[in-house]
Amino acid sequence: MELQNNLFLRACKRQNVERTPIWIMRQAGRYLPEYRKIREKYDFLTMCKTPELAAEITIQPVDILGVDAAIIFSDILVVPEAMGMKLEIIENKGPKLYEPIRSESDIKSLNNTDHLEKLKYVFDAIKLTKKLLNERVPLIGFSGSPWTLMTYMVEGNGSKNFIEVKKLIYNEPILAHKLLNLISDVVSDYLSMQIQSGANAIQIFDTWAGLLSQKDYEEFSLQYISKVISQIKRNGEPVIVFVKGIHNLDMLGACGADVISIDWTIDLALAKKQIGNKVALQGNLDPAILYAPKEKIKEEAVNILKSFGYGSGHIFNLGHGILPDVDPVNVKYLVEVVKEESKVFHQHNFFTRE
Amino acid sequence: MELQNNLFLRACKRQNVERTPIWIMRQAGRYLPEYRKIREKYDFLTMCKTPELAAEITIQPVDILGVDAAIIFSDILVVPEAMGMKLEIIENKGPKLYEPIRSESDIKSLNNTDHLEKLKYVFDAIKLTKKLLNERVPLIGFSGSPWTLMTYMVEGNGSKNFIEVKKLIYNEPILAHKLLNLISDVVSDYLSMQIQSGANAIQIFDTWAGLLSQKDYEEFSLQYISKVISQIKRNGEPVIVFVKGIHNLDMLGACGADVISIDWTIDLALAKKQIGNKVALQGNLDPAILYAPKEKIKEEAVNILKSFGYGSGHIFNLGHGILPDVDPVNVKYLVEVVKEESKVFHQHNFFTRE
Repeated sequence: MELQNNLFLRACKRQNVERTPIWIMRQAGRYLPEYRKIREKYDFLTMCKTPELAAEITIQPVDILGVDAAIIFSDILVVPEAMGMKLEIIENKGPKLYEPIRSESDIKSLNNTDHLEKLKYVFDAIKLTKKLLNERVPLIGFSGSPWTLMTYMVEGNGSKNFIEVKKLIYNEPILAHKLLNLISDVVSDYLSMQIQSGANAIQIFDTWAGLLSQKDYEEFSLQYISKVISQIKRNGEPVIVFVKGIHNLDMLGACGADVISIDWTIDLALAKKQIGNKVALQGNLDPAILYAPKEKIKEEAVNILKSFGYGSGHIFNLGHGILPDVDPVNVKYLVEVVKEESKVFHQHNFFTRE
Repeated sequence: MELQNNLFLRACKRQNVERTPIWIMRQAGRYLPEYRKIREKYDFLTMCKTPELAAEITIQPVDILGVDAAIIFSDILVVPEAMGMKLEIIENKGPKLYEPIRSESDIKSLNNTDHLEKLKYVFDAIKLTKKLLNERVPLIGFSGSPWTLMTYMVEGNGSKNFIEVKKLIYNEPILAHKLLNLISDVVSDYLSMQIQSGANAIQIFDTWAGLLSQKDYEEFSLQYISKVISQIKRNGEPVIVFVKGIHNLDMLGACGADVISIDWTIDLALAKKQIGNKVALQGNLDPAILYAPKEKIKEEAVNILKSFGYGSGHIFNLGHGILPDVDPVNVKYLVEVVKEESKVFHQHNFFTRE
């Protein structure tokens, strides 16, 4: 059976589409009353680890908002947990990983043998979601980038200055690379199995990309993203790399990703110019715009569409995750506006093809 | 009497220097035992408001580190306080402004008549510091940018997503501009009086520059920085604008600043290319490098010097404030390394001039 709506996948491949597809980072989340209803009964990690609950939450925004893709409900920190760290997630307060990784023996204590068994609930959730979605829209799997995961694993919890991870890379770069290699292999396995379980695309979140200088970013993050992408077993499923706080986009075009997803502080037109047309782009409305009145939401959504301009290769999204107390009515309105207002930017394609 | 060391001022004006000058953001601060000794006896705001203490703290890094400029010990939030807000600063925990500004009547309640009287202790501290410095090095005065000050005034305290200030600019842009204009006028008065009191240069901190899209940055921050710069009464004293988290530097070159100070995530060579040689550049070592061993500090300091390249127009600094628990020995070493290793980058000037 074929996907009924494959706009998202076609845009990832920069193929022609009749309108710009849209989905929203953290679209399955606390801003939805339907999500909060489930959350009342279960804690966050139970929701991630119970395939029936994860599948139901994953599909909610498809039904409620009409987005063009679903993303499996989970958290990037299930990977450090599967590697043996004790994880606690207090929603809206931030996660905590106990006994952070700081030394060679800490790294040696990490598990990289039965991580796939420990993450089985994610693969089960993907399988069930695929079944329940019934090919309406594609399903996106995801992971944190090796650098972003290492940052959490070394810091342990929300840090202001990220001093511990900086100390590691500046004082013990060999150890840092050892840890990054280990995480990269686990992430590659994890993403390969997500695809094998039915994920139609993969997003790698490099949320802490912006902590590093350009040179260090290439050394400690980008090369491991490239490694992961080259190691994922896939059959044409596109890979999206989300980067937050990156200044120099030139280098991202060659990392192996099909799509680069950027935050709202970068102008899409500039990003297109810098990255070139080797990859598609995803983004990048300021999540806070969803607090504004409808006219402003429309104006800014159209600005984003104009900024990317004519042609395919754009997936509409926010520049970061949706904020927890946004009104779902505004989100639904954004989805409708993008669907309607983007059509004109794709007519051009058909003209030039004829 | 003339300044004994005017390297910093000459570099701000892109005049020839025999070596690159260096000072360090937040150089008068908690990492120094000499500072902590005073801090044991007085709270942070008392230290800011007692000219004798502020002057002593301001001069400490000149004596201890041998930096090429002093910066008056104070805090950007003394401006909102002078405008009538109740301020509390818990060092290393962040500031709190009570009864944040959210409405037209909140804005009307702000004071913009006797702000200079209320800030008299800053001007007195500058006068006393100038006297005690005895023209050894120049003294820098400073303020937050209107956008950065507004962010604090609207949020009230450390915010994760800066939702309140975003709501203000997206929902009530006219009100936001009213507040920004008010702050700009107060900041202009404040900086003019700092110069009149003896400050040899001014730095405007736009710490929250990175919250905004490019378009919004121009509208809500950069135009007010330009306004302030055009309104400061000065007699050749250079103005430095520090921006954190900015992606597109092109637009900064024309804001009226003599120097643009950037964070460590941007390569200086790229910044030079983007901003052009209309202004000098300041920066931009990752503050966390000061946790590394000496060889690494030297390597990275030299990388920064190389990245800027030959010629004047570079002031060495960190990319953000120094971190509170850095070893002063490492900071002193950085200052020495920059003084020594930068000479070669300025010989070129003399050759081409001869």
